[in-house]
Amino acid sequence: MNIILLSGGSGKRLWPLSNDVRSKQFIKLFHDENGHYESMLQRVYHQIQKADPKANIVIATSKSQVSSIHNQLDMDVSISIEPCRRDTFPAILLSTLYLTDVLGVSPQEPVVVCPVDPLVGDTYFTTMQTLAEQAGKPESHLVLMGIEPSYPSEKYGYIIPNSNDVISSVKTFKEKPDRASAENYLNQGALWNAGVFAYRPEYILALAHELLDFVDYYDLFDRYETLEKISFDYAVVEKEPVIQVVRYPGEWKDVGTWNTLTEAMDETIIGEAIISDDCENVHVINELGVPIVAMGLKNVVLAASPEGILVSDKDQSDKIKPYVENLNQNIRFADKSWGSFQVLAVDEDSMTIRLTIKPGHSLSYHSHVHRDEVWTILSGEGTTVVDDMEQLVHGGDVIAMQAGCRHTIQAITEVTLIEIQRGEEISVYDKEKYKLKRALSPKTGQ
Amino acid sequence: MNIILLSGGSGKRLWPLSNDVRSKQFIKLFHDENGHYESMLQRVYHQIQKADPKANIVIATSKSQVSSIHNQLDMDVSISIEPCRRDTFPAILLSTLYLTDVLGVSPQEPVVVCPVDPLVGDTYFTTMQTLAEQAGKPESHLVLMGIEPSYPSEKYGYIIPNSNDVISSVKTFKEKPDRASAENYLNQGALWNAGVFAYRPEYILALAHELLDFVDYYDLFDRYETLEKISFDYAVVEKEPVIQVVRYPGEWKDVGTWNTLTEAMDETIIGEAIISDDCENVHVINELGVPIVAMGLKNVVLAASPEGILVSDKDQSDKIKPYVENLNQNIRFADKSWGSFQVLAVDEDSMTIRLTIKPGHSLSYHSHVHRDEVWTILSGEGTTVVDDMEQLVHGGDVIAMQAGCRHTIQAITEVTLIEIQRGEEISVYDKEKYKLKRALSPKTGQ
Repeated sequence: MNIILLSGGSGKRLWPLSNDVRSKQFIKLFHDENGHYESMLQRVYHQIQKADPKANIVIATSKSQVSSIHNQLDMDVSISIEPCRRDTFPAILLSTLYLTDVLGVSPQEPVVVCPVDPLVGDTYFTTMQTLAEQAGKPESHLVLMGIEPSYPSEKYGYIIPNSNDVISSVKTFKEKPDRASAENYLNQGALWNAGVFAYRPEYILALAHELLDFVDYYDLFDRYETLEKISFDYAVVEKEPVIQVVRYPGEWKDVGTWNTLTEAMDETIIGEAIISDDCENVHVINELGVPIVAMGLKNVVLAASPEGILVSDKDQSDKIKPYVENLNQNIRFADKSWGSFQVLAVDEDSMTIRLTIKPGHSLSYHSHVHRDEVWTILSGEGTTVVDDMEQLVHGGDVIAMQAGCRHTIQAITEVTLIEIQRGEEISVYDKEKYKLKRALSPKTGQ
Repeated sequence: MNIILLSGGSGKRLWPLSNDVRSKQFIKLFHDENGHYESMLQRVYHQIQKADPKANIVIATSKSQVSSIHNQLDMDVSISIEPCRRDTFPAILLSTLYLTDVLGVSPQEPVVVCPVDPLVGDTYFTTMQTLAEQAGKPESHLVLMGIEPSYPSEKYGYIIPNSNDVISSVKTFKEKPDRASAENYLNQGALWNAGVFAYRPEYILALAHELLDFVDYYDLFDRYETLEKISFDYAVVEKEPVIQVVRYPGEWKDVGTWNTLTEAMDETIIGEAIISDDCENVHVINELGVPIVAMGLKNVVLAASPEGILVSDKDQSDKIKPYVENLNQNIRFADKSWGSFQVLAVDEDSMTIRLTIKPGHSLSYHSHVHRDEVWTILSGEGTTVVDDMEQLVHGGDVIAMQAGCRHTIQAITEVTLIEIQRGEEISVYDKEKYKLKRALSPKTGQ
């Protein structure tokens, strides 16, 4: 199979565990087969690899998520980066071209596009293969997946098929309805539109050349910013008379709000917490290093991260957006390709941060105009470069760097360090990057 | 007036804002006249000073609270330190002797003993003066305050007086009753026993000499550990036929649980928090540097400190003890006589702490056997002494100290610094103190 995984939408619906740089698909909330926590991204990626070990998987995403994706998956995962937001059609087109022009997939081979964030059973990927087979037939244009609904939801769009067969042509689409309409659709055998669809690249490319002026992947990438915003619905679905739908009868959970997410959790507590016996239907997800005690609560979710603390009635948790929208936008933690960081303290004209750098990885070689920095190595071994001077460092070493000084560290074994930033204008934008004069050898430890 | 303020009982009923070193009377939850937050200790201390600017006030407490008391009140406040716990009679005796033998109060002058933690109106101190006047009469022995009850509480002991006069002799005492008995007592005109009482030192000293072998304050202090544990009730109240009670009809709030404490708060939010419009009777006290968002909750208290996070139904909040008893006992923050500290991060074999040192104050001159330390000064100016070498330091300076090295810092202006401790056995007990060879001059800045 050729698969485009859409890893979009940073956002705050799952604040404080999701923020402007960590989208919900990166939160580690689910057990993998070995009992370790994994994220939605890791889960769906591994499910695809299990269903089809030879699958070509491209992750379509924005620049801000690349570091998190590399942190959670192999470094050699294929990522199609949107240079900027241009709505769904250019994004899907770009990833499709990545498959054909970068990975060498034939324009006649089917491609399946799916979002990265639903929780699904393994049969979902069998249905996906049926989509691909169907889309691979020369007479097919667009093939959708339709989820068999478990209740008349007002949250999803509906696909009304012409028959109840596993594969059927589509009669019509319906936007998110009210409850009465949803019940009515269900009586007509309607399916939920989960945003999974398949096509052959040649089909999309033909449509694209009518709308846009481009030669290939590299050309489209270069002129991406100049493109019009066009939705996939407008460019493809609304114009296409021949659409088919494949039914999926298995497990499918949308985990877009704290309420639906906690329903899907394997246990009631993740992290350090005590829930009193008289609590009912209480879930705690605690990424802080201090305990949470919950007493006498019913139907409540508690989520805590270095970003903040949410305590919400589960049924109200989907109304979070306006409350967190205007909170301080400073990012207090993030997983990066090289490791992770957490802000420990913000004082006047200073900030204290803990960095963890994975073996063999390094920060960029960079300097700041407006702040001095002090690194104290807590543990691990690494190589620092400070104004082109290389030095082996380990736990206990202190490196003081004035503003303007170029610096980096490469971890040999995993390095944890405390970085203290001091200056009147501390900002993530105060960073100039350089090339190292001599590449550090990747002396990864055991 | 001569007043003994009992500042006892560290404890966890108000966890996470109270812990083994910070008792509830040190939490700053109430507005003073200038709109600043003040603690129960500060509030009652200032109320006494307002009622009687010449009052001799002695705070009776244990060693562990002395630093917090100095942090919140003047450095020259009188403190009678119990060397160890020996129940209420030896403790009250020791403070009484502190008044007579250290502060020179006459044994014929009345003394009023009162706990530090109820929230009361200013007329409480007028009633206290009536207690003192009454106790000052040669025919008086023991005079109690009786709070006019607002409901038949099961939480308090009762005093049943012989009349409804402002001053009456006591008929009998009743322990915490069940609801029906409490209603019955109220019909008999009973009063709550709030633990406020007055006597002349000569009266207590006579009783004490019958029970214990001691000469004066200094002698009692020295042999304190060898004393028997004796309660004030057993030694005094139960044997005394002539007890009087003075009625207090004004405001009196016991703030011993989160439920009663939040009732007494002036506002619903202290610290950074957002409470959604559909919340009812929700209080947030947030001492963490990150926001709390509360949505769709009813009758809930949220309290957060570097120690942990409590989310509790208010009516259940008095059941907290068993849940927090077995939590990690490491103290993560405290106010000290010299300033304050907060643990920012605990890693394997290291700990990162932020210290704030008040102008003119200094840490003890000390060393550690099992850990190295690095100080990075964030702001302020001070003098460090490291292995007898004095040095002026300011924001940005880094001081690295190996295990064994003696060190201290004295703040000239307020100093904030990050201390990184590294070692395999980090413990508060790993500390040896020294005398400075040359006293640092108290160069307090502006």
